[in-house]
Amino acid sequence: MISLSDLQQSLHRHREQFPALANKTYFNYGGQGPMPVAAIKAISETQMHIQQLGPFGNEVGRWIGKIIQATKAAIASELNVPPSTITLTENVTVGCNIAMWGIEWQTGDHILLSDCEHQGIIAIAQEIGRRFNVEVTTCPLMDTLNVGDPVEVISQNLRPNTRLVVLSHILWNTGQLLPLEKISELCRNNNSLLLVDAAQSVGAMPLNLTQLGVDFYAFTGHKWLCGPAGVGGLYVRPEVQANLQPTFIGWRSVVIDERSKPVDWEKGGQRYEVATSDYPLYIALQEAIAIHQQWGTPEKRYQQICRNSEYLWRKLSALPNIKCLRTSPPESGLISFQLANQQPQTTSEVVQFLESQRIFTRKIADPNCVRACVHYFTLESEIDQLVEALRE
Amino acid sequence: MISLSDLQQSLHRHREQFPALANKTYFNYGGQGPMPVAAIKAISETQMHIQQLGPFGNEVGRWIGKIIQATKAAIASELNVPPSTITLTENVTVGCNIAMWGIEWQTGDHILLSDCEHQGIIAIAQEIGRRFNVEVTTCPLMDTLNVGDPVEVISQNLRPNTRLVVLSHILWNTGQLLPLEKISELCRNNNSLLLVDAAQSVGAMPLNLTQLGVDFYAFTGHKWLCGPAGVGGLYVRPEVQANLQPTFIGWRSVVIDERSKPVDWEKGGQRYEVATSDYPLYIALQEAIAIHQQWGTPEKRYQQICRNSEYLWRKLSALPNIKCLRTSPPESGLISFQLANQQPQTTSEVVQFLESQRIFTRKIADPNCVRACVHYFTLESEIDQLVEALRE
Repeated sequence: MISLSDLQQSLHRHREQFPALANKTYFNYGGQGPMPVAAIKAISETQMHIQQLGPFGNEVGRWIGKIIQATKAAIASELNVPPSTITLTENVTVGCNIAMWGIEWQTGDHILLSDCEHQGIIAIAQEIGRRFNVEVTTCPLMDTLNVGDPVEVISQNLRPNTRLVVLSHILWNTGQLLPLEKISELCRNNNSLLLVDAAQSVGAMPLNLTQLGVDFYAFTGHKWLCGPAGVGGLYVRPEVQANLQPTFIGWRSVVIDERSKPVDWEKGGQRYEVATSDYPLYIALQEAIAIHQQWGTPEKRYQQICRNSEYLWRKLSALPNIKCLRTSPPESGLISFQLANQQPQTTSEVVQFLESQRIFTRKIADPNCVRACVHYFTLESEIDQLVEALRE
Repeated sequence: MISLSDLQQSLHRHREQFPALANKTYFNYGGQGPMPVAAIKAISETQMHIQQLGPFGNEVGRWIGKIIQATKAAIASELNVPPSTITLTENVTVGCNIAMWGIEWQTGDHILLSDCEHQGIIAIAQEIGRRFNVEVTTCPLMDTLNVGDPVEVISQNLRPNTRLVVLSHILWNTGQLLPLEKISELCRNNNSLLLVDAAQSVGAMPLNLTQLGVDFYAFTGHKWLCGPAGVGGLYVRPEVQANLQPTFIGWRSVVIDERSKPVDWEKGGQRYEVATSDYPLYIALQEAIAIHQQWGTPEKRYQQICRNSEYLWRKLSALPNIKCLRTSPPESGLISFQLANQQPQTTSEVVQFLESQRIFTRKIADPNCVRACVHYFTLESEIDQLVEALRE
C-alpha cells in the first residue's frame, strides 16, 4: 500500500505538468481547470501542422476528420458511451441549448428546473417558455443538501405534461451530488426527458451514462478535465436522438448530394455540430484526458477528490467562524462555506482577500457563500494554507 | 509610384510571416486563410498568461473582458461599425443561425434564398420552414454572373410576406460580388430583413456596413482575415436588435441580479454570445487583422486582390481547354473555371492533381468547377505556376 507521503510526493511530480499551479494555491476547478503544458504545446504544434498541410485542402481535411473521431473516442472513454453519441460543442451551455431547443415544444408543455441551475440555463428555459407558451417551474433541491430526498422533491414537482427536467449532476453552488439513476428512472416513468448539466461532474467522478439512463448530458472540457476553454460536448441517448432535431445547423450537420445540397442529417452526434471549430483545441483536450488517465482510473481520481474534500471539510468545520453548508463530508470536490454573520459584501471581500494572498476561490450568490474546489491533485498543504488564511 | 518588382519584393517579405505559404502554392483563401506566425505565437503566449493569472479568478476575468472588447474593436475597424454591434461567434454559420432563429416566425412567412448559398444555410432555412410553417424559395442569381441584374431578379422574387432574404456578399461558388446597397434598399422597401453571408467578403474588400444598410452580416475570421479557425462574428444593425431575440443563450447573454438570476439581456451584440470561448484565439485574430492593416488599407488590399484576380483570369482565359465562368475580369479574389468537356469526376481529379503538385485549389459542385482564390499577397509567380500546371 502506498503511504500518504509517497502519494503527496507523486502528486508533486504530477502537478509539475500544470504551470498554473506553480504560482498560486488553486481552488477554482469548478470555474476552470489548469491546463497541462503538454496540452498548451499541442495547440501550437497542431496549428503549425495544419499550416504545413494546408490550412485548407483534401489531405488536411481527412486529417482533421480523424482528430474529431479521436477526440470523441477520448471523451467517450470517460463517459462509458459509444463515441457516436457525442456531439462536440464550444462549451457546456451550447450542449444544453442543443437539447432544449431541439425538442418539438407544444403549447402547454412544462419544463421543470431545479432551483440550483446556472443563470444561462434558466434564461434558455425562460426564453423557450416565452416563445412556445411552455410553463417553467422550479423545484427546491437546494434544501435537500443535508436532509430530505431530492428524488422525492422531483417526484412531487413532476406533472403529466412535464416534457423536460433540467438539473445538474453535481450542483454548482452547494456541491451536492444528485442520485441520477433514480431521477432518470422517475423521469422515464413520467415520459419526461432528462437533461443533465454535467459541468461539475465530467472529469470529477466515474461515469457510465448508459447505465445512468439520462437522455442528454452536457459537459465541458475546460473545468475538471483541465482541457482548453472552447471545447465541450453533449451526449444524446441513442434512443432519443431521432426525436431531437438539430437547431443551430451548418455544414457539419448535414449529408449533401452530388450538387452539395443538404439531403439528410449526419449520423450520430455530428448532426448537432455546426461548422468550423479550432481543431487544435480538440487535440489539447485529448492530451489533458490522457494525463488524468495515466495518473489513475476515474474511480481512483474520484476517491482522491473525496479524500481531499473531506480533509478540507473537517478543517473548515473546526474553525469557529466558518460554517460549511454540508453537515457531513461532501460527495464531490466542491466545498461551499459561509462566514459567521456573513453579508454578500463580506463574501466578496473574503474571496478578494484570498486572491490577494494568491489563494483562488470564488463567490457564489445563491446561497451566499465561498466555494473552494479540490481536485485529485490538490495537496494537503494547499488545503492547510487556505484554512490558515481563513483563520486570520 | 511603386514599381511592380518592388511590390513583389515587399510581398515576399510580408509573406514570410505566413508559414503555410512556405511549402506550397496556395489558392484556398476562401476555404481557410494561412495564419501569421505572430498569431500562432499569441495563442500559446495568451494560454500561458491565462495560466499565470488564473485560469479562473477575479483578475483574469477582468483581463478577459478587455480582450473581448479589443477584439470587437479590431473587427469593427474593418467593418466600419460601432464595436457594440458585434457579436463574437465560433464561425460564420453560427452568426447566420443567430439571425435566422432569432426572428419571431409566423405561419405563412416567406424566406427568400439565393441559389448560391452554402449547404449549411440552406439546411437552416429548411428546418425553420418545417418547424414554423414558413415557405422557403430560391431565386436564380447564379445566372446573373455575366448578364442580367441580380437586383432585378431579387425584386421579382420578393413577396409581400417575405420576412427574410438570405444571400452572400460575394458568392462562394462563382465569386460574383452582389450590389448590396441596392439590394438592402429593395429589401427595406419590402419590409424584408436582409441577412448577408459574408464568409468571402470580410477581409477581402473595404466595407462600411452602416452605409450598406444590411440588417445582419455574418462573417468569420479564419478565411480572408487569416485568423484562427473558431472565431467569427455577427453584425446586427442597431435598429433591428430589439426585434432579434437571442436563441442559443448562456451566461454571456444575460444581466443577472444580486442572486445571480437572469433579469435582462446584455446590451449590444453580447446578448447573442453564449458562454466560455477560447479567448487566446481572439488575440490571434487581433494579430492577424493588425498585420493586414500594417500592409495597407482595405482599399489598397482589395485593389491588389483585383489586380491578381485579373492577372489569373487573363492567363486562364488564354488557355485553350479552360473556360472561366466570368466573361470579364472578376470583382473578387475568387476565380472559378471549368475544363473543356469537364465531368464532376474530372474536376476532382484536377484538384487532386494540383494538390499533388502542392498547388491548393478546391472543387465546387454547383456549378461544377475548380475555384482558385488570390489574396493581396498572392505572387504573380504563384499564378504562373498554377497556369503552367493546368496547361499540362
